[in-house]
Amino acid sequence: MAVGPSTFPADMPAIAGFQIGVAEAGIKKPGRRDLVIMALEAGSRLAGTFTRNAFCAAPVHVAREHLTAGAEGPRYLVINTGNANAGTGEQGMTDARATCQALAEIAGCDAKAVLPFSTGVIGEPLPMDRLTAALPTAFANLGEGDWSAAAHGIMTTDTRPKGSWRTLALSNGESVTLAGASKGSGMICPNMATMLGFVATDADLAIDQPALDAMLRRVVVKSFNSITVDSDTSTNDACMLAVTGQAGRVEGEDLIAFEAALAEVMLELAQAIIRDGEGATKFVTIEVSEARSQEEARAVGFTVAHSPLVKTALYASDANWGRILAAVGRAPLEELDVTGVAITLNGVTIVEQGGRADSYTEAAGSAAMAEEELVIGIRLGRGQQEARIWTSDLSHDYVSINADYRS
Amino acid sequence: MAVGPSTFPADMPAIAGFQIGVAEAGIKKPGRRDLVIMALEAGSRLAGTFTRNAFCAAPVHVAREHLTAGAEGPRYLVINTGNANAGTGEQGMTDARATCQALAEIAGCDAKAVLPFSTGVIGEPLPMDRLTAALPTAFANLGEGDWSAAAHGIMTTDTRPKGSWRTLALSNGESVTLAGASKGSGMICPNMATMLGFVATDADLAIDQPALDAMLRRVVVKSFNSITVDSDTSTNDACMLAVTGQAGRVEGEDLIAFEAALAEVMLELAQAIIRDGEGATKFVTIEVSEARSQEEARAVGFTVAHSPLVKTALYASDANWGRILAAVGRAPLEELDVTGVAITLNGVTIVEQGGRADSYTEAAGSAAMAEEELVIGIRLGRGQQEARIWTSDLSHDYVSINADYRS
Repeated sequence: MAVGPSTFPADMPAIAGFQIGVAEAGIKKPGRRDLVIMALEAGSRLAGTFTRNAFCAAPVHVAREHLTAGAEGPRYLVINTGNANAGTGEQGMTDARATCQALAEIAGCDAKAVLPFSTGVIGEPLPMDRLTAALPTAFANLGEGDWSAAAHGIMTTDTRPKGSWRTLALSNGESVTLAGASKGSGMICPNMATMLGFVATDADLAIDQPALDAMLRRVVVKSFNSITVDSDTSTNDACMLAVTGQAGRVEGEDLIAFEAALAEVMLELAQAIIRDGEGATKFVTIEVSEARSQEEARAVGFTVAHSPLVKTALYASDANWGRILAAVGRAPLEELDVTGVAITLNGVTIVEQGGRADSYTEAAGSAAMAEEELVIGIRLGRGQQEARIWTSDLSHDYVSINADYRS
Repeated sequence: MAVGPSTFPADMPAIAGFQIGVAEAGIKKPGRRDLVIMALEAGSRLAGTFTRNAFCAAPVHVAREHLTAGAEGPRYLVINTGNANAGTGEQGMTDARATCQALAEIAGCDAKAVLPFSTGVIGEPLPMDRLTAALPTAFANLGEGDWSAAAHGIMTTDTRPKGSWRTLALSNGESVTLAGASKGSGMICPNMATMLGFVATDADLAIDQPALDAMLRRVVVKSFNSITVDSDTSTNDACMLAVTGQAGRVEGEDLIAFEAALAEVMLELAQAIIRDGEGATKFVTIEVSEARSQEEARAVGFTVAHSPLVKTALYASDANWGRILAAVGRAPLEELDVTGVAITLNGVTIVEQGGRADSYTEAAGSAAMAEEELVIGIRLGRGQQEARIWTSDLSHDYVSINADYRS
């Protein structure tokens, strides 16, 4: 199940200096693309954010280490689906390093120039024989622009590929392009990181690595770190931004426009994960305003987004707004004066001054809840800050997907 | 659905100085007991804990106020099910006070000697005409010992009544009795409070009110505040302990034995809520040990207990222990060294030194998961503190109950 039509663009562009190669390694089951290589031209830069889960997977450890360790800079990302290589102890670390080494030998580069990524079931050993056997095929397939193959090749319980892109005209008349793919459907509550998200740009950014890292962090907070399907932060989340520098120079005011374009691409990729959330039948935006701080606004948004009772009411299209109110009331806020709280549902005011709005009718609430796309507005009445969180509902299919299938 | 046979005792005892009266008020639907009065002999004492939900219901506000305000002390508790009188603004406060006033006029006492409690749907006005019309019947029915009627009369989505009792032989040869009833099935994650729980004792406790309050708080933390069905803290949680003082004097060492007996009664009432959790097919104890603090141990326990992925794996009896590991990894702990973590399932070691145990077999894990009652042991390897949290699984029935029915 998924909300609305697929959002994968038909016209995903190639990024100069960035190539994609895909193969069928049969890691979990045969006959599907499950191994992806992304190649960065020499001289490219790479920024990344990773999961904060303490049990972060072996490839996350190795990718984080290689991100800064390679003398020749980053050259290859290698991504497998079907197995997360998490909870696998020392063997997992050995396997992640061996994957880098195997690709490095094929490509003729240093193993530290390769960053590994894995997604899939936790706690089972990575089938190294099948993975390494398929590396030459994926490497031989490297070519520009096949984002659809990459997006398919990283899917787990996803029902459809996720991609987004933008071009940006620069002040000097040149232009740059950004494109990316993401995956994710369950175990989605990124914490200072993301599910797997890969974005590449040909821009020649006039900023140093710390500034590039900071830009990625700013954008990730408002995109991948603002979504939740089920409150479960994965062991394997990672978001990577590859900058090949093969196109126009981006400096001055253009940097602001570039960050805005990057934010749009990342947000579309993040929202695509929610639209494809496990069992999702609703796409829900929670807009929290008049908070004392960003953190407070986000805490209220996530409390509502994680409430099983709110999520089942959304699934039922039941205007049971008392559950939203109860979730706001249990959010970790100091001294919330409920008489200042107002709640709307697709513009219909349901709560004002802490109680049911005089103007509210069950008919209006039910009509709003029947929509496939919902905006829950929560005004806290105690400050100037705001945040937006995106989530899906809790359906029978979510239970079936996670009870019937070992993901 | 519920786990195991009903645990309601066949032989619930009367408590001297404590009476119960029940009526059918037709608050939500006709033909069921939905109004309960509990009467305390003059001179009784009462201690209580209430929800920390900022949107706490009107009756919670009034009960908290009356708990200390009445010149003649507490005399009556009046409890309705079918309507929570929460999110009802000023009208809700007026209705809660009017309920106390109506009972006070029948009983010939001060309105402040009456404490109101409500449970049921949030956001709909309390049907005062039906409620007050049934008060004389409930009052006329007052008598000692019908705990079964009281336990039935406070149920919402509960599938069975919940009760527990103990007698305690004192050093001086006398004895005292404790008995109580609770309700709760969904919207269960009490926070410094509980779902509705009412316990009465005829003990003559040789402690002052602050010490009585403190005893109740200590016991509640390890019982009602250590359970969760769905992470949603209700707007109406309350736990009351009535002390009539009609039986033996409890002092000195006997006070320690009394607190232990009270803890057993409260824990049985809390566990009965989990066994009857909405859609529950499993009764799960999460034992967290070797933590740096109680708070840390509880945080890990609740993170695992709230994980939808852990809960659906429990429902499926799928030994997908990677989900438990991932939940431990995202718990809010400072600098968790995962190599110190061990996880067991009904005694079967699944994780040691942060990865899959060498001795682990899928067959042993599956056999453990197939049990209806499960103990998940989590050893953090970084301290001496421990905590136990109880929870249920996430089943299709949970979704059906909350999506098909406005609770």
